[in-house]
Amino acid sequence: MACYQMGPNTHSIPMTLFRENRDRVMAELRKVPALEGKQALVVLQGGDNISLYDTDVDYVFRQESYFTYLFGVTEPGCYGTVDVTSGRATLYVPRLPAEYAVWMGPLLTPDDFKTKYEVDAVHYADEIDVKIGEENPSVLLTLCGPNSDSGLQAKPANFKGIEKFVVDSDILFPVIAECRVIKSPAEIEVLRYVARVSSDAHKQVMKKIRPGWHEYQGESEFLHHSYAVGGCRHVSYTCICGAGSNSAILHYGHAGSPNDRLIEDGDMCLFDMGANYGGYTSDITCSFPVNGKFSADQKLIYEAVLAARDAVCGSAKEGACWVEMHRLANRVMLEALKVGGLLQGEVEDMMAAGLNAIFQPHGLGHFLGLDVHDVGGYLAHCPERPAEPGVCRLRTARTLKAGMYLTIEPGCYFIAPLLEKAFADANLAKFLVREQIERFRNFGGVRIEDDVLITKTGIENFTLVPRTVDEIEAWMAR
Amino acid sequence: MACYQMGPNTHSIPMTLFRENRDRVMAELRKVPALEGKQALVVLQGGDNISLYDTDVDYVFRQESYFTYLFGVTEPGCYGTVDVTSGRATLYVPRLPAEYAVWMGPLLTPDDFKTKYEVDAVHYADEIDVKIGEENPSVLLTLCGPNSDSGLQAKPANFKGIEKFVVDSDILFPVIAECRVIKSPAEIEVLRYVARVSSDAHKQVMKKIRPGWHEYQGESEFLHHSYAVGGCRHVSYTCICGAGSNSAILHYGHAGSPNDRLIEDGDMCLFDMGANYGGYTSDITCSFPVNGKFSADQKLIYEAVLAARDAVCGSAKEGACWVEMHRLANRVMLEALKVGGLLQGEVEDMMAAGLNAIFQPHGLGHFLGLDVHDVGGYLAHCPERPAEPGVCRLRTARTLKAGMYLTIEPGCYFIAPLLEKAFADANLAKFLVREQIERFRNFGGVRIEDDVLITKTGIENFTLVPRTVDEIEAWMAR
Repeated sequence: MACYQMGPNTHSIPMTLFRENRDRVMAELRKVPALEGKQALVVLQGGDNISLYDTDVDYVFRQESYFTYLFGVTEPGCYGTVDVTSGRATLYVPRLPAEYAVWMGPLLTPDDFKTKYEVDAVHYADEIDVKIGEENPSVLLTLCGPNSDSGLQAKPANFKGIEKFVVDSDILFPVIAECRVIKSPAEIEVLRYVARVSSDAHKQVMKKIRPGWHEYQGESEFLHHSYAVGGCRHVSYTCICGAGSNSAILHYGHAGSPNDRLIEDGDMCLFDMGANYGGYTSDITCSFPVNGKFSADQKLIYEAVLAARDAVCGSAKEGACWVEMHRLANRVMLEALKVGGLLQGEVEDMMAAGLNAIFQPHGLGHFLGLDVHDVGGYLAHCPERPAEPGVCRLRTARTLKAGMYLTIEPGCYFIAPLLEKAFADANLAKFLVREQIERFRNFGGVRIEDDVLITKTGIENFTLVPRTVDEIEAWMAR
Repeated sequence: MACYQMGPNTHSIPMTLFRENRDRVMAELRKVPALEGKQALVVLQGGDNISLYDTDVDYVFRQESYFTYLFGVTEPGCYGTVDVTSGRATLYVPRLPAEYAVWMGPLLTPDDFKTKYEVDAVHYADEIDVKIGEENPSVLLTLCGPNSDSGLQAKPANFKGIEKFVVDSDILFPVIAECRVIKSPAEIEVLRYVARVSSDAHKQVMKKIRPGWHEYQGESEFLHHSYAVGGCRHVSYTCICGAGSNSAILHYGHAGSPNDRLIEDGDMCLFDMGANYGGYTSDITCSFPVNGKFSADQKLIYEAVLAARDAVCGSAKEGACWVEMHRLANRVMLEALKVGGLLQGEVEDMMAAGLNAIFQPHGLGHFLGLDVHDVGGYLAHCPERPAEPGVCRLRTARTLKAGMYLTIEPGCYFIAPLLEKAFADANLAKFLVREQIERFRNFGGVRIEDDVLITKTGIENFTLVPRTVDEIEAWMAR
């Protein structure tokens, strides 16, 4: 049985996973009235190598996610087709000059690709128009539609000769995106694996870190453990390794702020890092004091966020509304901040005024799968994006279903421009106990992020890291 | 003094390095007859973020090399101008919405950029046409020209309103490319640093590796040491970690063959890996037996390549012809293979027949700097690409000058399709002792790659790794 695997200690992804994905998508397409009586052929185009500017160095190739979903192919320059009626899958691979073997090793033949990916046929990409023509399809279904996180469009397949065919680029997108929302049993095992690898890598960082490290040394430790132990060559997004006040910078770690700060004794660390295995993602945040011991203030904020996380983990299940989960997390966190003396007044009034979005400007969580912000959040049949502060940042407003896989990631941050805004707004300022909050000016922030599978009765949490204050202190003291 | 640095144990790159680069380029431009009496303004456009397909995940940003050369700027979305007459440098930076501070941290003001990069002025990129207009230049010099390794073109700067100016895109390219060929004292110190970091990382891999590892675990160890110890977030190219027969695959490690093979006792390893610091590259190959002890056959091939490397290291200096260095390396290697009993006949006859390119199909080495295959190899004033087998793969045919920085990387490989070709060609087959060569069918290959600075009297080798058989065995036995 063909599979993707990075050695015997890593997870084996069977090629049947991708066949099952194709079968699900085709089954849904066969229900589409517009395709009745048609001989429809799905056509996807995989990614190509990207060079670093005008040089002959390429970025390490990463496959496009929809193409991975249907075919699991790791090489650039391919196309894939699936016959909607029969489910017959065909790959089209680049025809490489024979002398490439000197540089790339023995070139795979079409038969090698057929065995490697367990598809029904393989041809060269330069004959795709002829070979598709021989199947005489009445319509080609290509992929076009908006990514609701980036605002960018999926790029529909294109090849020389496509103009000879009838092409529909509307039907496929919502169907395949919706299929990706509900994870299959085989996908769940991959996601479980990559969440475990990432959890172990986070634990490794927490065990080794100490004051005097630079933030990027934590990033490097994570990358190394994920790759050398877990076989994960890539991460799902740029590692966010903020210490001290940097922990309140939500997308810290970018090229302008490359995790390059010294971590000092007394700093909180907020490390948001997730490995990627075979295209499947994880997205985990651990927050902890670099010296392994929470101060009273650190404990106060941490436990406010932990209470929010625990409340959501205890309530999320099939049928629950994700928007309500966000509100629940925010209410619990505000309540804890009130008990801690930072806020005053009624929590419901704070929520109505939008104070929650001052302390947690981002959404509670998002779908996770082949993309770290996975597709299907705002498809046409889904509830629209809410308008309330904070809640409006949610990447989906859907009702939960078993098989959905999401992050639960409440956070509490002291972000200077947002605090200024709140102090300047009488409707918000009245809740703030200024002399208490001033103490947290340079605190940074705390986020706790788990990757969880929704079930009929609750959740299954794939993130296995120390979470309570006691657990973290005990782990870091080892 | 402003600098780029990833913590106190890493190299400090002073911003004066980039000012000196600008000064050198402007001094050369002032000699260009076509610019006499003109008020010329160099305009470069830096790189932009690249998203992973249609998602909201970006690749970690890496700056375009010419832009780094003149400005050292690490942020995306910038332009830079330099007045040819005065040398006055201006940066144009993106105007980011205030709310980005929540996600990216405190936004740098133009004054912050001015301090960070020690330029004369900073404006927002959306006013570049107006601000350039105020300088009233008679011509804008943009960058356009071919990369002789990739065949791609440098992308000339473009902005709204550029059509109001006279633009020349021919003059700048050969001048700036030629400047990049000769490294400045400050650049040499960066290159020395990144070669040392890479050397240490290679040594770390050689110390830890053992049979039973997968190739990618060596890659991961290298990446981790380069980053955690050396502050190098990037490598200069995808790591090539071939073991056993994979060591004869020149560009092994790509997405189709991601360093995923088990390394078995008795395998040779060929690990070609180079860290990148502040944009400056290294490119080092170590070849060694995974079990730390050379077999007689491994020693034979290794020492043939080492002899070639030693010969070139002893001969390269200002005034030497690089093409001759390639031929020298190949002759020495063929002689050693003859002594070892694999070849018969006269080495000069083998060279005339092109047998050298069967065992070493690639060039002896290449310029190295901000690109791993650095620019300037085949500019208009340089000798043309030679036609001989093997020699034709050289990335430059120039006469060496002090300040040039190159790899010296002879190799000897047993590549099935090339051996077949040689056995089938009477002009080549007559030199081959078939029964001896058959023994090496699955041997793979050996490459020894150093990064060296050319001086008036010889070379300075920045690569500090065990190189002789005895040194390697002693190091790996520790």
